[in-house]
Amino acid sequence: MDILHRIGVRTPTPDATYEALTTIDGLAGWWTAATEGSTGIGDVIEFRFPPVGGFDMKVLEARPNDRVVWEVIDGPAEWIGTTISWDLRQDDDFTIVLFRHAGWREPVEFMHHCSTKWAVFLMSLKSMIETGHGAPAPQDTAIDNWN
Amino acid sequence: MDILHRIGVRTPTPDATYEALTTIDGLAGWWTAATEGSTGIGDVIEFRFPPVGGFDMKVLEARPNDRVVWEVIDGPAEWIGTTISWDLRQDDDFTIVLFRHAGWREPVEFMHHCSTKWAVFLMSLKSMIETGHGAPAPQDTAIDNWN
Repeated sequence: MDILHRIGVRTPTPDATYEALTTIDGLAGWWTAATEGSTGIGDVIEFRFPPVGGFDMKVLEARPNDRVVWEVIDGPAEWIGTTISWDLRQDDDFTIVLFRHAGWREPVEFMHHCSTKWAVFLMSLKSMIETGHGAPAPQDTAIDNWN
Repeated sequence: MDILHRIGVRTPTPDATYEALTTIDGLAGWWTAATEGSTGIGDVIEFRFPPVGGFDMKVLEARPNDRVVWEVIDGPAEWIGTTISWDLRQDDDFTIVLFRHAGWREPVEFMHHCSTKWAVFLMSLKSMIETGHGAPAPQDTAIDNWN
């Protein structure tokens, strides 16, 4: 079971979006300010959401302006072993981002939550590139009682 | 294949959320201003997004403050025959909404788009009830080059 999303970032090339997915500063600008680690192939990126925990992602693929894939190696039990992929392409004035969080084992309530929350963070990514201002945690938009 | 989402609306009972899903005025306040039809069991609700078309939904279930189910009977080919369910429950200060758009046949790019767009409209539903102001089409938030 997969979570799927699509956004279009109004920007002339995929460079800015690729950079937002493959640098610590870029990631900290739209997902969580508490992002550390390294972003090369085989490296681990540590995303934290104080005080509730976070995710460790191993970088499996990073093809410039084309595709990024992470594997979740630590975090909530439901996330471990799942993969997150980002496919980029340019359509005229937009960088199209196809997002897939693949390998959920059950359609649990937490999967519903994460699907909506991913959408909100993808809109934060779009905003960061288009306006210079994202809404990363802890300034993220709450969607429910789990935040 | 299903699109799943979860929001929590900060409101003391599920009444307002149920009304927003089962009255024409309620639906027009968060999804599309161009909503017509009737909302009883077996009735058809017509959602339009000028100039690009829309969806006709047949109401399959409507259990007060508990569950609403629609079947898509006209609209884009990918949507016809799919079902959309809304499960409501109260968790302390929040009405929790579990959303499921079930029965997609292929994980097409349009499904990615609709998943993100549903999240944006669910946040519009939450905002309508919490603040009195939703963002229904044509005032909806664009997510990509398909709107």
